Amino acid sequence: MLYIGIDVGGTTAKAGVVDEAGQILYKSSCKTGIERDFEDIAADMAELCRHIVRESGHEMAEVAAVGVGIPGEQSPKTGLVAFCNNLGWVDVPLMQRLRDALGLPVYVDNDANVAALAESAFGASKDVSSSILITLGTGVGGGIVRDQRIHTGAHGVGGEIGHMVVVVDGEPCNCGHRGCWEKYASATAIIRMGRALMEEKPDCALARQMGGDAANLNAKAVLDLAKAGDADCAGIFETYVKYLCVGLANLINIYDPDMLVLGGGVAHAGNFLLDAVRAALGDYVYCPALSWARVELARMGNDAGIIGAAMLGRNV
Amino acid sequence: MLYIGIDVGGTTAKAGVVDEAGQILYKSSCKTGIERDFEDIAADMAELCRHIVRESGHEMAEVAAVGVGIPGEQSPKTGLVAFCNNLGWVDVPLMQRLRDALGLPVYVDNDANVAALAESAFGASKDVSSSILITLGTGVGGGIVRDQRIHTGAHGVGGEIGHMVVVVDGEPCNCGHRGCWEKYASATAIIRMGRALMEEKPDCALARQMGGDAANLNAKAVLDLAKAGDADCAGIFETYVKYLCVGLANLINIYDPDMLVLGGGVAHAGNFLLDAVRAALGDYVYCPALSWARVELARMGNDAGIIGAAMLGRNV
Repeated sequence: MLYIGIDVGGTTAKAGVVDEAGQILYKSSCKTGIERDFEDIAADMAELCRHIVRESGHEMAEVAAVGVGIPGEQSPKTGLVAFCNNLGWVDVPLMQRLRDALGLPVYVDNDANVAALAESAFGASKDVSSSILITLGTGVGGGIVRDQRIHTGAHGVGGEIGHMVVVVDGEPCNCGHRGCWEKYASATAIIRMGRALMEEKPDCALARQMGGDAANLNAKAVLDLAKAGDADCAGIFETYVKYLCVGLANLINIYDPDMLVLGGGVAHAGNFLLDAVRAALGDYVYCPALSWARVELARMGNDAGIIGAAMLGRNV
Repeated sequence: MLYIGIDVGGTTAKAGVVDEAGQILYKSSCKTGIERDFEDIAADMAELCRHIVRESGHEMAEVAAVGVGIPGEQSPKTGLVAFCNNLGWVDVPLMQRLRDALGLPVYVDNDANVAALAESAFGASKDVSSSILITLGTGVGGGIVRDQRIHTGAHGVGGEIGHMVVVVDGEPCNCGHRGCWEKYASATAIIRMGRALMEEKPDCALARQMGGDAANLNAKAVLDLAKAGDADCAGIFETYVKYLCVGLANLINIYDPDMLVLGGGVAHAGNFLLDAVRAALGDYVYCPALSWARVELARMGNDAGIIGAAMLGRNV
């Protein structure tokens, strides 16, 4: 059978026809955008599905299901998208609209969960039974997968690992709470520390590279300088790895998966990050005398969203 | 069939013959103690098992299995008790000794996990599929149960919820790390805050009740005064509930069980604690607009250790 996977973002929705082996046979996209009406977007997404199936040389009858990854939350109780902040969706019937338009089963889940499913099906964690993907980007997202199924828990609110509080009364988070892990383990946290460094030491290597303008700052610049041996940026990196490891150790001490998979922009630092995490993690787990999760880098790249979404329909 | 459950403590091991309905048909105990040789204790435990089966009016042939709850960790890899601090055990073959002596399958798990299993089999969480017991005592223990099985994870190191870090660089913990949840959500945390109050305000109600001697202090005294309306102790209680809820919300945001069950000494405060937690928890969960875990008090009492251990053998 074939599966359609849709990766919904703030400006476009990418969709692909995916086979059992996780190969994308054909993919295309349509516009989304917070300014557009939900019903118009839903209609475009349905049309996009018909289009990609046709262009792939197959027929709708060969498609078993449609899976959709959204940057928000589907309520398992109502079957509605409860919220999707960067599209302004509140309680919208995305699953119902696509199901009615296409006559296929439709499954909707959070985009980080969907990416975790893709890693588990065909990526870094394909050979283990339980894994947690941690996406280190603007925020920290993630998904828990066990036996090729996403663990979202009894009410569908689990797997929100980025909002685990690691510093009570710490940095304020967009979610309204304080001290969430993502305020310390995201690319944004590296940028915040880089800015503080530039203010404190206006003649440091980072400030010189940025032409003194903190607005130019990105996490990669800090990580590259740390890798090149700059002591200031290495200090930021060390602090970052510490907070990252505290959260990873919490996941181990609570859930104990076979594998932790690091993805997102910060994970583009590759072995520089991986080696540092592997070296430090033992200092933070509760039982260092026993075994714990392997740590690996994500492997699925940009199509993880489409492929993982497609697998929502396969791994029912 | 019948099951033997053994609850191993620092001074005694209590054992009971338990039926399918969770009733203890007969129970007795033998001495443990850090000063005693492991082999002697293991031999006494085996003899205790024979004794209670005889006294219950049954025969060994009717017993399906033996379950043991220990204040330590069994390594799933080696099958040895990796450590059991208050008995000084390191890599001891408890499972093997009892199996060889009794000719029965023997299952060993952490005592907090075992108590969680008892709640799930016959207590507060018996009607739900997934639950987490949180024991608020000298430390914070707990166990995750799903479909009547303990979730200890891929390497057997999960479910250590008390050592989830909620304050990076916070209070030092016995485990060697800093800022573990149990440093803020245990009875010990209430005592610490009570001591600080007595130092700061030597004429406060708590100090007067303790005769000015902080050595007399226990968590119940602080909780009772808070309940009676004393503003100072109510302040401690409020802080305590906040830290408790941060950790509970972390468990919801990560695992999302059907139910959170509060046990241990602090939970003897009953509805005073339960009402406060239920009222505050919504301020800490990531998605307050969606549903989340019910919070209940543990119901199994002192025999939870025996009954839960017995269920290790039933729910294989």
